[in-house]
Amino acid sequence: MSRFFSEKYAFLTPYTPGEQPQNRKYVKLNTNENPFPPSEKAVRCACEEAKRLELYSDPECRGLTDALAEMLGVEKNEVLLTNGSDEILNFAFMAYCDDQHTAAFPDITYGFYPVFAEINRIPYTEIPLREDFTIDIRDYFGIQKTIFLANPNAPTGISLTKSDIEQILKENPDNIVVIDEAYVDFGSESCVGLIHSYDNLLVTQTFSKSRSMAGARLGFGVGNASLISDLNAIKYSTNPYNINRMTMAAGIGVLADEEYTQANCRTIMDNRAYTFRELEKLGFECLDSQANFIFAKHPAISGQKLYEQLKERGVLIRHFSKERIRDYNRITIGSMEQMQILINTLKEIL
Amino acid sequence: MSRFFSEKYAFLTPYTPGEQPQNRKYVKLNTNENPFPPSEKAVRCACEEAKRLELYSDPECRGLTDALAEMLGVEKNEVLLTNGSDEILNFAFMAYCDDQHTAAFPDITYGFYPVFAEINRIPYTEIPLREDFTIDIRDYFGIQKTIFLANPNAPTGISLTKSDIEQILKENPDNIVVIDEAYVDFGSESCVGLIHSYDNLLVTQTFSKSRSMAGARLGFGVGNASLISDLNAIKYSTNPYNINRMTMAAGIGVLADEEYTQANCRTIMDNRAYTFRELEKLGFECLDSQANFIFAKHPAISGQKLYEQLKERGVLIRHFSKERIRDYNRITIGSMEQMQILINTLKEIL
Repeated sequence: MSRFFSEKYAFLTPYTPGEQPQNRKYVKLNTNENPFPPSEKAVRCACEEAKRLELYSDPECRGLTDALAEMLGVEKNEVLLTNGSDEILNFAFMAYCDDQHTAAFPDITYGFYPVFAEINRIPYTEIPLREDFTIDIRDYFGIQKTIFLANPNAPTGISLTKSDIEQILKENPDNIVVIDEAYVDFGSESCVGLIHSYDNLLVTQTFSKSRSMAGARLGFGVGNASLISDLNAIKYSTNPYNINRMTMAAGIGVLADEEYTQANCRTIMDNRAYTFRELEKLGFECLDSQANFIFAKHPAISGQKLYEQLKERGVLIRHFSKERIRDYNRITIGSMEQMQILINTLKEIL
Repeated sequence: MSRFFSEKYAFLTPYTPGEQPQNRKYVKLNTNENPFPPSEKAVRCACEEAKRLELYSDPECRGLTDALAEMLGVEKNEVLLTNGSDEILNFAFMAYCDDQHTAAFPDITYGFYPVFAEINRIPYTEIPLREDFTIDIRDYFGIQKTIFLANPNAPTGISLTKSDIEQILKENPDNIVVIDEAYVDFGSESCVGLIHSYDNLLVTQTFSKSRSMAGARLGFGVGNASLISDLNAIKYSTNPYNINRMTMAAGIGVLADEEYTQANCRTIMDNRAYTFRELEKLGFECLDSQANFIFAKHPAISGQKLYEQLKERGVLIRHFSKERIRDYNRITIGSMEQMQILINTLKEIL
């Protein structure tokens, strides 16, 4: 840090992303990427658009917004696309949190929430998950805070039902509830359909996981038009041209290829079931996941050690040092071939 | 705005980008885009990378950072790439401004500076340009504020010399001075070479103008390693994967095609000289521009009216309603063909 850095950030602890080795030498199961390549339609659209880079992208993101709104069954002014879903989450912390509306989220969840709170200098409360890592929805009733819930939760993979979330919404009529559905396409229920019933609901999603577009940076928020108008005010005050032309085009392409997306999601869910069974056979305890990863621990080896031994053997998974979960590792569900390499490597280690 | 929007933003006035009609029916001279297509190398690299979108982009942006540092003659840890230069400018407002270090910039300059100040709730001072729209550098000596100067300035196109800026740096040893060089490649002097002499200097640039990549969203900051470390702390606390894979690849491609960039810049400067002469012949008063635009007014027609009449005839330029400059219009320098259409259309109107 320099002598000029504002004291307001003196205690900032930036987020640590999962390792991103840029070569292919690892079986990469550490950042919940999709094992399948992007839709060919997405690639074609992006390439075509690359020829027009001399012109700014559309700050209103019109073509893609139209296509997305249609797919979600909402109006155009109920959606806002962003540079990854991290951007819309940060916008939500900016727009809906302050000293009067502090933030609340589980103690075990997406590690970026406390960082967003800190960079925006917002006090926050971490509400402990139950012993079994499930959420007790009653902990969130009437708490007068802006609530952030990943559903399915990360890194556990456990999800709440839509009716659970509806209860949280009902019990917080004067607070925003953000449901972060980054992993929703792998078997859990989306709350997008609730935005017309609850003006306090913002749903966020991403093209990174189910749509094989992590490297394109595309996320979005869905909520009633007045929430989207708030979030647009933040966007137009920070980075109006937040999405580049190629990503916008790729987004349009992949939405026109929904069968490909759905087929890949089904394969990943099948591979998850396979991996779950195989891990249990090896003695792992696995949480019940509805995401494209499994959170698992083994009684015979520490989480850290397992991570290291897999890495030595060319398999990268994600370990978190936080005390409550340090026995566990988060393992991304990849292709069947990758899962078999994982299982065979684990057999070697154990 | 919704009833949930934080009161801290009650007075926010978001930035208004120039019109971005997504069809080609206009001769588009309103947002300082480059009239030439992106480098073929950039397009090829971006297309190749589009096939790997399932993997996150490198948060450290390694390949591109290496290439850029080499081109600039600085170390890798003296550069930070961002999602357009708006992002690095916002980071600088976040990192270096607060109630003790308020912001200062000219009254006539890039219209986003006051918005960045407002979204970050930073008090700011607008220092009037002289009557002739030049900067009196003495106005910035020892002012104990974080200084933002576009050089060349926008929308005037007028630039300070490197030695002018060096004096401002010397007279502000304890304050950051941000030199926004978005338009530096069209004839003015860059201050990048000063970063090793002044630890209070941050230079920002963009690939949008000289490199025909406005639609790719790529900007950067250059400063000593400890400043870059501050700005990285902000990046990793808001959006670590801020640059997508295709843009990163296009950036590498265009840096390998520097001759193309330089040739286009020379053509644009030639076209600027032509346009300047032709505008003066028509009775316009033009400011002396070192950017890819000309700021001009005509004694016989108001700025607003000229803008409207050109738009009706298919030529889009940028008008600002701010009182001091409302007689003027900012006209982007395009291809010779575009400039001839502009001049002929002006002849029709006048």
